[in-house]
Amino acid sequence: MDAVKKGRARKSTGREVRRLSRFAQRLLAEWKRLGLPTEHESVVVAVSGGADSMALLLGLNELSGVGRLALALTVAHLDHGLRAEAGALDARWVAEQSSALGCEVVLGSAAVKVRASETRDNLEQAARRARYEFLAAVAFERKARVVLAAHTLDDQAETVLLRLLRGSGAEGLSGIEPVRKLFEKNGVLLARPLLGWARRAETEAYCLERGVVPRVDAMNTDERYARVRVRRNLLPLMQTFNGRMVEALARTAQLLREDAAALELVAAELLCQASAEDVNKKSAPQQQILTPLRVDVLKGAPAALRRRALRQWIARGRGDLRRLEMTHLLAVEELLEGERGGRRIELPGGASVRRKRGLLYFDLKRVEKGDAAV
Amino acid sequence: MDAVKKGRARKSTGREVRRLSRFAQRLLAEWKRLGLPTEHESVVVAVSGGADSMALLLGLNELSGVGRLALALTVAHLDHGLRAEAGALDARWVAEQSSALGCEVVLGSAAVKVRASETRDNLEQAARRARYEFLAAVAFERKARVVLAAHTLDDQAETVLLRLLRGSGAEGLSGIEPVRKLFEKNGVLLARPLLGWARRAETEAYCLERGVVPRVDAMNTDERYARVRVRRNLLPLMQTFNGRMVEALARTAQLLREDAAALELVAAELLCQASAEDVNKKSAPQQQILTPLRVDVLKGAPAALRRRALRQWIARGRGDLRRLEMTHLLAVEELLEGERGGRRIELPGGASVRRKRGLLYFDLKRVEKGDAAV
Repeated sequence: MDAVKKGRARKSTGREVRRLSRFAQRLLAEWKRLGLPTEHESVVVAVSGGADSMALLLGLNELSGVGRLALALTVAHLDHGLRAEAGALDARWVAEQSSALGCEVVLGSAAVKVRASETRDNLEQAARRARYEFLAAVAFERKARVVLAAHTLDDQAETVLLRLLRGSGAEGLSGIEPVRKLFEKNGVLLARPLLGWARRAETEAYCLERGVVPRVDAMNTDERYARVRVRRNLLPLMQTFNGRMVEALARTAQLLREDAAALELVAAELLCQASAEDVNKKSAPQQQILTPLRVDVLKGAPAALRRRALRQWIARGRGDLRRLEMTHLLAVEELLEGERGGRRIELPGGASVRRKRGLLYFDLKRVEKGDAAV
Repeated sequence: MDAVKKGRARKSTGREVRRLSRFAQRLLAEWKRLGLPTEHESVVVAVSGGADSMALLLGLNELSGVGRLALALTVAHLDHGLRAEAGALDARWVAEQSSALGCEVVLGSAAVKVRASETRDNLEQAARRARYEFLAAVAFERKARVVLAAHTLDDQAETVLLRLLRGSGAEGLSGIEPVRKLFEKNGVLLARPLLGWARRAETEAYCLERGVVPRVDAMNTDERYARVRVRRNLLPLMQTFNGRMVEALARTAQLLREDAAALELVAAELLCQASAEDVNKKSAPQQQILTPLRVDVLKGAPAALRRRALRQWIARGRGDLRRLEMTHLLAVEELLEGERGGRRIELPGGASVRRKRGLLYFDLKRVEKGDAAV
C-alpha cells in the first residue's frame, strides 16, 4: 500500500519524463494506449528470465520508481521441465532478480512432455497451455485482473511468417493479439505491452543499460525449431528487401486482425439470419443442441462470411474449435451444393453436421459415462 | 470458320481425353471452372515468347487440334522497347511460332521508358499499362470478349511475397485475380487459366515436350529486380520450411481475396447507410459531386469496413484510386475523431476531404482548361 500512496502523491512533471529511459517512456505510452490499469491493482508479470521479459519487468520497475505506475507486481515463472538443471537455475535467478526489484515471485513447474503425450498436443502447444493455466492460477490467487507477457514486435513478425509458411488465412496472419482474455471463460486479460513497438534488440539493450545480463534459453538457438530458423535465416533475408520488414509484417498483422474482426461481426449477423425453426423436429430424434441453419441463406452469402458463420456455429455446438481445420469447413460447405439431403460430415471430436430438407443440423455424439476410459 | 465447324462436329470420347497431354487436360479443367468460352468466339492470347505464354498457346493449340476448343485465336505480342534488338528478335520468333500453329498474330511496340517519365509511373507499371492498352486494342479490333495471360502459380506466389515485403493488407496479399476486367470501363475480360494450378517447371517441360524452346528474357535473371530475387532466393528458402510453399501462398491469396470481396460488399452497404442529405448545402458553394457522409455512422463502424467505405467513396469521386495510400485513408479517418469540423485532408491528384457539421465532404479541384499546360 505504501507504493500506491507514493504513486498518487507524486505529480508527473516534464523533468520526470526526461529522466525516464526511452524504453520506459515507450512502455508507458503503449500501456496507456492499451488502457491498462496504472494504480490500485495487482498485476502478474510472466518472466522467463530472457531479455524480453526481464526488460518488461525492469521497465515496470522504472515506472513504479518514479511513481508513474503504482501497481502490486507479482512475478510468475514456470519451469516447463524441458531443460533439466537449466530450468532450476533459471527459476532461482528469476527469484533473485525479482526480490532485488522488490517484487513477489511465484515459481511453478510443469511436466510438459507428459502433458503433451496425454493431450495429443505438440510440445509447444502443451507448454503454452501449461503456462497459461499457471498464470491464471497465480492471477486468481493474487486477485489480478491483468497478466502481462513480454512478446515483442519480433515475436509478432516471426509468428506472422510461421503462419504464412503454413498457408494460413486472415485469422492466422493476424498474429499475436495485444490484449485478449487469458481463457475464454474467465475475466483475466493477457496483455502484451511490448508487442506493438519493442524490437528484441531494444529489450537486450535496455537490460544491459540496467546492469542485468538476461538468461539465454538454449532452445532459442536450436535450429530444429522452425521459429529459430525464421528468426536467423528467413527474416534477415526479407530484411534485405525492406529494412523495416518487422514493422511491415506487424502492420499487415494489424490490418488483417481488423479485417477478421469485421468479418466475424458480419458473419454473426449471417448466422442469425440463417438460423431456422426446426421444421423437421419430429423426424430428428437426436438431441439438438443448436438451431439448424437454412441452406438457402448460407448458399447466397459470400464464401468468406459463410465459412466464418459455420465456424461460429460449430464452435457454439462443440464448445471450442480444437482440431477443426479448413478442410472440415470446406466439407461442410459442400453439403450446401446440389439439392440432395441425407449426407453427413464428421468433425474431429465426435460431432457431425448433416443436411436434411433444406436445413443443416449439428449433432453431438452423446458421451456416456465410462466412454472416456475405453 | 473451318475450325469452328470441325470443333463442333467432333464428339469427345474417353480415348480422346487419354490422348491429351496432362498439361492440356488441366488447362481444359481450369478453363471450364473459370467459365471461359469454348467455341464460336475470338480470343486474344498475350504471348511474350517465354515458357509460360508459349505453353498456354501450345496448350490451346492442342485442345483445338482435338476439337475440345473451337476458338479463333489471335496472338498479341508487344515489344516494350526496353531491350533493343532482343525485343525485335522475340517479336519475329513469336510471329513465326504463331504462324506455324496457324494463329494470326498482331505485333505492337511501345516506348515504355518515355511513357513512364510522362506519367510518373515506375517502369513496371508503365509497361503493364502499355501492354493492357495494346491488348484492349487488339481485342476491340478482333471483337474478342476474352484476353488470356499466362501467369502461373509461381507468379501468384511471387506477387503475394512482393506485396508482403511492402507490408500490404488483404487486397495486396490477394495477389493476381484469375479473371477480371481488363479495364474498369470496358467489357473485355482478362483471364489467367494457368494461375490456379501450373508451376513454372510444368510450362517449361510442356514446351520441350512439344519441341519448342521458349525465349528467355534477360530481365528474368537480373537480380536488380525484387521479383527475381524473390524467385531465386526468398522462395527457395521458404520451400525448405514447406515443400508446397507456392501452393500455400496461392491458397492464402485466395482466402484473402474472398475476405476482401466480402468486406467490399459490406462496406458498400455501410457507404449507403452513411450517405446523407446535404444539410449544409447553402454554405457549400463548391461543386459537390458526391453525397456527403455522416461522421457518426462512420465512427460507429469497424475500422476495416470504415476504411473500405471511404476508399469506395473516394474512388467514386476521383474516378480511380491512383496514388491513394493507406496514409491518406488514415488521415481522412482522423477527421472523424473529436468534435471539431473545418479541417481538410488533401488527397493526391487535387481532391480533398473536409469535415463540416457532422458530415464529410469530397471536393474535387476544378481543372480549368489550360491548367494542364502549366
